[in-house]
Parts: sequence; C-alpha cells; structure tokens
Amino acid sequence: MPRIHFHQQLVELKDKLLTMAALAQQTMEAAVEAYVQRNAALCQYVRENETAINTQHLEVDEMACDLLAKEQPMAIDLRFILAVIKINGDLERVGDQAMSIALRTLATIEEEPVDLPVDIFTMGGYAARMIRTSIQALLDGDAPLAESILDMDDEIDRMNRVAHGELIRIIQEKSEVASQALQAIIVSRNLERIADHACNIAADVIFWVRGADVRHQLITAE
Amino acid sequence: MPRIHFHQQLVELKDKLLTMAALAQQTMEAAVEAYVQRNAALCQYVRENETAINTQHLEVDEMACDLLAKEQPMAIDLRFILAVIKINGDLERVGDQAMSIALRTLATIEEEPVDLPVDIFTMGGYAARMIRTSIQALLDGDAPLAESILDMDDEIDRMNRVAHGELIRIIQEKSEVASQALQAIIVSRNLERIADHACNIAADVIFWVRGADVRHQLITAE
Repeated sequence: MPRIHFHQQLVELKDKLLTMAALAQQTMEAAVEAYVQRNAALCQYVRENETAINTQHLEVDEMACDLLAKEQPMAIDLRFILAVIKINGDLERVGDQAMSIALRTLATIEEEPVDLPVDIFTMGGYAARMIRTSIQALLDGDAPLAESILDMDDEIDRMNRVAHGELIRIIQEKSEVASQALQAIIVSRNLERIADHACNIAADVIFWVRGADVRHQLITAE
Repeated sequence: MPRIHFHQQLVELKDKLLTMAALAQQTMEAAVEAYVQRNAALCQYVRENETAINTQHLEVDEMACDLLAKEQPMAIDLRFILAVIKINGDLERVGDQAMSIALRTLATIEEEPVDLPVDIFTMGGYAARMIRTSIQALLDGDAPLAESILDMDDEIDRMNRVAHGELIRIIQEKSEVASQALQAIIVSRNLERIADHACNIAADVIFWVRGADVRHQLITAE
C-alpha cells in the first residue's frame, strides 16, 4: 500500500513544519519580550532557538524534496509539498528577524533606558497574532482564515511608518537618544517583516488549498 | 520523444530565470545609481522594473511547478527545478530591496544634500558584483564560482557594520542630518541583504550541481 505510506509521510511532513512554526513563533515572541524587558538571558534563548530553527529548516526541506523525488505527487499533494517548501523558507526568515531583534536588544541594554515614542510591545503582539493565525490556517488548511491575515498587513505597515516618523523626530530633537531610537527603528522594521512572512505563509496556504496564486495581487512589495 | 521535449522545457525554464536575473540585477544597479545621483526618474524606472520582476516571478514559479507536476523529474533535474524555485524567490526579493532603496532615495532627495560618512557607491558595486557572479555561476552551473561568492559576504557585512556605526555617530553629532543618515543606514542594510540573496543563489547552485546543501553552514544568519 504505497499510497497509504505516502499519505503518512505527508502527515509527518506537516507535523514537522508545524513544530518548526511553533518554534519560530515562540522565538519571535521571546525576542519582543527580550526587547521590552531589556533581558539579555532571553536574547540568548532566541539565539539558541534560531540555531534550532536553521537545523529544522534543512530537515523539512530535505524531507519535502525527498518526497517530491520518490513519490512524484500530483495536484493537491504536489501543491502541498511546494507550499511546505516555501512556508519553511518564511519560517526560517522569521527566525532571522527574531535574531536581529535580539542583537538590537543586546546593543540597547548596554545603555541607560530612555523613553521612546514607539510601542514595540503592541506591534510585537500584532505581528505575533498574524504569525499565530497563519499557523492556524496552515494547520486547518483554512483559506478564508488565511485571507484574513492578508487584511491585517496594512495595520502593521501603518504602525511601522508612524514609529519610523516619530523616532526620526525624536532623534533630531534629542541626539543623546539617537542610538537607541535607531535600534527601535530597526526592531519596528523587523516586526513589519515578520508580518510580511505571515502574509507569505497565508498566500501559500491559499495556493495549497485552492490552487490559486494570490501573491503580488494582495501583498504590496516593501 | 517526451524526454527531449522535457529537456527543451528545462532549457526554457533556465532562460526565463536568467532573464529575470538580468532584470533584477539591472534594477538593483539602477537603485544604487538613483540614490548616488539623487535621481527621481531612475526611482520610477526601478518601480516599473519591480512590477515586471513580480510578474516574471509568478511565471517562473508556475512553469517550474507545472514541470514538477507533469514530468515528475528525478535526481539532478529535480534538484535543478527546486533550485529554480528558490533562486526565483531570492531574485524577487532583490527587486523588493531595490524598491526599498528607491523609496529611501525619494525621501532623501526631498532634502538638501548633506555629506555622510558612507560610501553607498562602493557598497552597491560590491553587492552588484556578488549578484552578477551568482548569475554567472547559475548560467554555467559552476559550483566553485558559487563558493567564491560565499567568501565575499563577510566583506559587505563589515562595510554595513562600519557604515552603521559611522552614521549613528554623525546623527548624534549633527541632528540636522539625522533623517538622511537614517535613510543611508537603511540603504546600507538593503545592500547587505542583496548580498545575502546572492549567497542564497550561490548555495542553490551548489545544491543543484553537487546535491549538497551548504546553507546555514556557510551563511551566517543576520
């Protein structure tokens, strides 16, 4: 019964991807917490997770490529495996963004805390919700849920633009906060990029479930 | 003779990808030139090219997925098609980075020119050389050439770090240049990311030619 075996392997592939997705989500949430709490230990946790994500990225990629090579799947199974390969790449990049936030955090906590006109906590929570929802859409193969994520992207783009403007303003007024304000600008961009990856994942779920390619129509290039 | 037809399609797929690669390269070079020359018309050229890249990205992706579905290729052909899918994604992101540089340029040229301690021209030339070399490695299936690109990445990372440090320093000294210095920091990061995409392309060429996965071993996460 080779087809039953094949479908077991697809289930296993999906499980592996979901495990990696959960790790990517925890890592980005930990990175936001590290920044907000100025916590170096959490940065170390992010660093270790990022290494684990890289390992899982290669494993998922290898398993997906092996399945393509050995089973020569058709139609929806093929679309699923191709979606897995792409989502896997996006999750790995979520790990990279989390790592960037951790590095910004380590640079920030070397200096005295300053008040900055940016709410990384709220932005981080919003980006985390987009990632969490995209994983849920993947878990359930839920295209309408995936579509709802694409609608969320404008709001985080707006938050990032506002933060950028406010932070530039304060840098010009108080040069002593320049270095930390700059780190905050980068963290804000990291979160906006994490949201972009959530949108990519959502688009791949729609491609898998419906066979339609919604990239570029709905996602604006940054 | 279905196999001959299949190999013709592979040649066509590679041609399509190389066309897109050439466009991505021109677009990033134009973006650097736009920034250095403060040229709004070139920004518009970048914007139009970026739209064309997005269209080509979908076409290459669709052709690659169709080939996987219909021809069920094995071994090196399968690896080639998977490499095409990944390289295609990297080229599309090179277009995104070029677009980001064009947007930063448009913001910059609204203000009076200032002297900044960063050499975007040299950094841009270096990143362009990495992209050009990665495309050459793809064209020739040249794994040693691809490896040489991975060795180039440290230098642009170093340039980006130095630029970042210098630009933060000048922001603290002269708050009136803050906004343009910030745009320069972002452009410097865009170029560093373009170099990362060149490395990803190189790693995919090595995977295609040798069947070995060199990602994460050689490329440090940002």
